[in-house]
Amino acid sequence: MPQLGLLPRRTWAALLSQLLRPPHSACIPAVGCHSQVAEAVLTSHLKPHQEKPNFIIKIPKGTRDLSPEQMVVREKILDMVVSCFKRHGAKGLDTPAFELKETLTEKYEENSGLIYDLKDQGGELLSLRYDLTEVPFARYLAMNKLKKMKRYQVGKVWRRESPTIVQGRYREFCQCDFDIAGQFDPMIPDAECLKIICEILSGLQLGDFLIKVNDRRIVDGMFAVCGVPESKFRAICASMDKLDKMSWRDVRHEMVAKKGLSPEVADRIGEYAQCHGGVSLIEQMFQDPRLSQNKQALEGLGDLKLLFEYLTLFGIAEKICFDLSLARGLDYYTGVIYEAVLLQTPTQTGEETLNVGSVAAGGRYDELVAMFDPKGHKVPCVGLSIGVERIFSIVEQRMKTSFKKVRTTETQVFVATPQKNFLRERLKLIAELWNAGIKAEMLYKNNPKLLTQLHYCENTGIPFVVIIGEQEQKEGVIKLRSVASRKEVAIKRENLVAEIQKRLSES
Amino acid sequence: MPQLGLLPRRTWAALLSQLLRPPHSACIPAVGCHSQVAEAVLTSHLKPHQEKPNFIIKIPKGTRDLSPEQMVVREKILDMVVSCFKRHGAKGLDTPAFELKETLTEKYEENSGLIYDLKDQGGELLSLRYDLTEVPFARYLAMNKLKKMKRYQVGKVWRRESPTIVQGRYREFCQCDFDIAGQFDPMIPDAECLKIICEILSGLQLGDFLIKVNDRRIVDGMFAVCGVPESKFRAICASMDKLDKMSWRDVRHEMVAKKGLSPEVADRIGEYAQCHGGVSLIEQMFQDPRLSQNKQALEGLGDLKLLFEYLTLFGIAEKICFDLSLARGLDYYTGVIYEAVLLQTPTQTGEETLNVGSVAAGGRYDELVAMFDPKGHKVPCVGLSIGVERIFSIVEQRMKTSFKKVRTTETQVFVATPQKNFLRERLKLIAELWNAGIKAEMLYKNNPKLLTQLHYCENTGIPFVVIIGEQEQKEGVIKLRSVASRKEVAIKRENLVAEIQKRLSES
Repeated sequence: MPQLGLLPRRTWAALLSQLLRPPHSACIPAVGCHSQVAEAVLTSHLKPHQEKPNFIIKIPKGTRDLSPEQMVVREKILDMVVSCFKRHGAKGLDTPAFELKETLTEKYEENSGLIYDLKDQGGELLSLRYDLTEVPFARYLAMNKLKKMKRYQVGKVWRRESPTIVQGRYREFCQCDFDIAGQFDPMIPDAECLKIICEILSGLQLGDFLIKVNDRRIVDGMFAVCGVPESKFRAICASMDKLDKMSWRDVRHEMVAKKGLSPEVADRIGEYAQCHGGVSLIEQMFQDPRLSQNKQALEGLGDLKLLFEYLTLFGIAEKICFDLSLARGLDYYTGVIYEAVLLQTPTQTGEETLNVGSVAAGGRYDELVAMFDPKGHKVPCVGLSIGVERIFSIVEQRMKTSFKKVRTTETQVFVATPQKNFLRERLKLIAELWNAGIKAEMLYKNNPKLLTQLHYCENTGIPFVVIIGEQEQKEGVIKLRSVASRKEVAIKRENLVAEIQKRLSES
Repeated sequence: MPQLGLLPRRTWAALLSQLLRPPHSACIPAVGCHSQVAEAVLTSHLKPHQEKPNFIIKIPKGTRDLSPEQMVVREKILDMVVSCFKRHGAKGLDTPAFELKETLTEKYEENSGLIYDLKDQGGELLSLRYDLTEVPFARYLAMNKLKKMKRYQVGKVWRRESPTIVQGRYREFCQCDFDIAGQFDPMIPDAECLKIICEILSGLQLGDFLIKVNDRRIVDGMFAVCGVPESKFRAICASMDKLDKMSWRDVRHEMVAKKGLSPEVADRIGEYAQCHGGVSLIEQMFQDPRLSQNKQALEGLGDLKLLFEYLTLFGIAEKICFDLSLARGLDYYTGVIYEAVLLQTPTQTGEETLNVGSVAAGGRYDELVAMFDPKGHKVPCVGLSIGVERIFSIVEQRMKTSFKKVRTTETQVFVATPQKNFLRERLKLIAELWNAGIKAEMLYKNNPKLLTQLHYCENTGIPFVVIIGEQEQKEGVIKLRSVASRKEVAIKRENLVAEIQKRLSES
């Protein structure tokens, strides 16, 4: 398993052991969001305030505040994802939250109803970005005439979807993308993208997972040999993409009744769509009497075969599954496509292994950059997106069911006194600690009670307390107390920083 | 000087030694932004592409992409700022990019022209946030009925200002805020805010700096005793706030000609506004025949006196200057206000010490949260905002003038081969490195030339190369090459990871 990069391994292991228990239900449950609770309470029980009777305090639908508890989890997950991207040599990039409306809609006509437009306040017409790859990255490459780049980007994106928060879907959410742009030998960067997904999902210890792989050319070839009219490729592709949420029966019904496909053609697709396996399935499809007649499909199969060879060398082939039902809704993919799903570990009652949904996905898009380039120059690309919001939801849910408290601060030392009139000593002392890079807190009171101070440490998980009082001052010492063991030792005042640093490095 | 928290001290020191040279000019020059150059080129020399003759590729006015070089600097600065906030026990918080329009405008009537509204696409009326404190933090506290919280927030905010990019002002920019909410004994949290500003500005090694301090009650008291009509307090306050950019002569002219103040009143203000100093100035103002008659001003002076006592205990009093001209434009301040400015170190030619502008600011706002609370409950707050965009501009400019190259990746080891047909070996090897947490790259080519591979390492600053070829394979070894010294040593294949980790920990 890869190391956790920037994150101290122990920190993460400790957090995980606190948080991660196998979830008890198969679906992803509601996300805890005390803000929304507060909102509901405030808007329903609101007693109109004299000065502003109509002022209702709430946040926009489909958005949420992230509380300090949620921020701790989010930060650890993002740190791990980004450190993996960096381990693979990626550079960082940041782009504006909004783009020119025409830049965004040029590429997203179909779903432009999902785009948040800004009000025309004079000047340019702008819209909030809805992803990090399609527009910002491809636009950046074309605008700067870059022919190759390995970059990652982490940021918020916005989509005006009906906010079904119960499923963990928000109108504002965070994306983490990694992409490799450039003309290279086949399948080497593609294999690295799959390796990255494996490293991240293993590192996050979310449980067992599987990455489904297919190729857009195999999907199209399959549609062609099954007899789907080319004009219906997109629509049928979109239906097939629902196979992870709907049964084949329902998808078939949609294809026939809603999309006007003939039942025989649908059944032919059905046969393929149920195929999944490893390298042997690729070989089998090479021999398939219909599919082997399609040039595109053969190209796709050839690339997949090479990809599996590289995945074997990377030691991750057993995590990858060639799945002919995988379609990936997005238009822009041109080659390999993939999607990682978590597998529910079977519970003690012997339930079946269940799918808790996609947590990473991506593919090859060789034509996208050309659409932003005035001269239509191509820059082949392959990339992936980590479904961090889904991952946050899972970890948050496990936190809730575990009832363990998460520290929201990193404070190492608390400066306390048992006596009155020691504020000045505490201020001098804490400044010394801060200056030495030690994370320290004290109460903002002139004369706090010792018990209040010690309770604060216990409640917030601060491991050490430095105590200064009359006796200590007289003797030129400081008491250093371990909150867990409640043991106290006297330390010479001038050795305090060194002693604390020693203890912190040991703990 | 404080330690640099999360950042390895050596890394930062190395970056700084590369980047930070005393700037040669007093003003902050234009920010390098190759995207905008590209934009200009593309929009002027655009040869219409056949399929999309009117498609112009650019990004919105007042925004910019951050290139990998810029991202490296930004990340290091933000890491240092956030690690300081955490050293002081702050919790993280995140809020949505947009808020309900009525929530935002409730508080910001005066400048609502600066707010980006979202288009009415059905549903709620929304606007992009213009800061992190006034609305999101105060709204969060009120909505969740929190009576105390020490939090930091880092995020983008948006303002529709005329984009004078030359001055480093953008319509989209990053803010870093730290605030302490709660009812505490006077001046303890306020002093900590000033300590934090000192730690951050010292840690970033931007050169000498000074923090101007005043109190909103002293400002108001001064206006009152000078004879400013209460209805003009705000307007005159806004004029005085320009004293760091304009001369007193010009500010006086604005007060008299534009804001209708009588010349005598303006002159009385002028006398105070020229006063700055330390504790002795506070004592002097206590004795001031006019100011000492004003109750509000006396309260402010009393608090400032206590503040200076705490700042002395923190060892930072010499960095703080009581400045009666400091007004801080924002309405919501109710007590202490402060603003940090960088001082230009005198150059060899003996030029005067010059002000390069505000890089951090803040103050006490005890009434703001109540405005969001339906029952008007007060939560006293004090906080600060680090002017990270200004700091980025300064560091970027120094980078430019130093002509030193900044590494945009963190890759530690490159996997190379001098022979053909070694792709498979390279893939196995690099997977081993990644699995051990080592940052590694290779070229995505089946048969790259050795020279191309070594050049890549030199160009991108990768310190080590692992070389595998026929001879090595036969002998069961790997060559490990130091890019700087060009020395190579043979290492047993099975010891590779351990050897590399040893060398990396030494370097």
